[in-house]
Amino acid sequence: MRIALIGTGNVGRALAKAWAAAGHDVVLGSRDPAAKEDLAKELGVPVVGIAAAAEHGEAVVNVTPGAESIATLRTAGAAALAGKLLIDIAVGFTEEPHGTALSHPDVSLGELIQSTFPEARVVKTFTTMDSVVMTGPDTLEEPSTVFLSGNDPTAKTRTATLLTDLGWPPSTHMDLGPIETARGQEHFAHLFMAIAVSQGTYDFNVRVVLPKAE
Amino acid sequence: MRIALIGTGNVGRALAKAWAAAGHDVVLGSRDPAAKEDLAKELGVPVVGIAAAAEHGEAVVNVTPGAESIATLRTAGAAALAGKLLIDIAVGFTEEPHGTALSHPDVSLGELIQSTFPEARVVKTFTTMDSVVMTGPDTLEEPSTVFLSGNDPTAKTRTATLLTDLGWPPSTHMDLGPIETARGQEHFAHLFMAIAVSQGTYDFNVRVVLPKAE
Repeated sequence: MRIALIGTGNVGRALAKAWAAAGHDVVLGSRDPAAKEDLAKELGVPVVGIAAAAEHGEAVVNVTPGAESIATLRTAGAAALAGKLLIDIAVGFTEEPHGTALSHPDVSLGELIQSTFPEARVVKTFTTMDSVVMTGPDTLEEPSTVFLSGNDPTAKTRTATLLTDLGWPPSTHMDLGPIETARGQEHFAHLFMAIAVSQGTYDFNVRVVLPKAE
Repeated sequence: MRIALIGTGNVGRALAKAWAAAGHDVVLGSRDPAAKEDLAKELGVPVVGIAAAAEHGEAVVNVTPGAESIATLRTAGAAALAGKLLIDIAVGFTEEPHGTALSHPDVSLGELIQSTFPEARVVKTFTTMDSVVMTGPDTLEEPSTVFLSGNDPTAKTRTATLLTDLGWPPSTHMDLGPIETARGQEHFAHLFMAIAVSQGTYDFNVRVVLPKAE
């Protein structure tokens, strides 16, 4: 699949490398691609402008900081995103230890992106974990859970394939339902930070444990 | 231990029964104990007024709805709570499916209770699960995690004992740190509701999965 990652931070870099290694045609989108030549060389993945990246991608993946996501995706333009799978991994929070500053207390960034780009097929996923775990689920003691939220079933199926390519078998996927459920994934940031600080690592995840079969 | 549960809803009833069965001296506190005679008979646990319950308890447990917790605990009075273990299980949210109405976006009920009753030793726990799981961790497929947040180490140790009495061995306890981390436990309500709706059950929990030992 042609994948465009918008954002060149840790998450974008890790996913670019991992999806490229899985055989996908990956580009990174940056506001200043000329300054990222070393990065492109290091990752073996082209770094292009935001609009060019969005144009390239069959799947566009938002890995920008939550507070900047809407503005950055606007640079790509609604036309470039129309009809496309738009995977949103950003968190609509600041990253202070106990998450004191919610950017969007009563809504999620995932919903805002869907309402801002109504023709895109937004799927929120990977929001509840660090990039080391996203690209290395087997680094943990046991299988853990990856959540998906979105309104378009086909977009979720395509996202699920991309998760499987990174080592997440379908048994680890949990479809939470419509994009409103992105709130759950994003607000988990508070518990994520509390666990991270108390355990001294970002490299963990949660597994949903269901009732025993009767 | 003398345990006073403030609140007679599902959580209060389930915990009263389970801690009484574990040999503790339990009372339920209600604003209208006279109307709860049948409940007292059914559970085999006395139902008394709020102030009398708080007076009785060495541990006072808040299981009132989050929006009413502070007002209800005020009826008990700061003097009755001073120096005591005050276990807070309530959620500072409304219970709408995707948690649209946060009562306290930038703070937690646990912190508010601690600042309202500075001499109480507040421990937030059990907030991330349903009463069926609180009192029956073995009903789930695998061991899962119970979180603790609070400023007083002794209060957390005593709470840990009460958790163990309900079937939660110490290996399932995760101390998140100070009471500020109650935000993580409470804001998890968004993800809890999304999981509950998508899976069609409230009877689940999460397990924190840590990195493999190197």
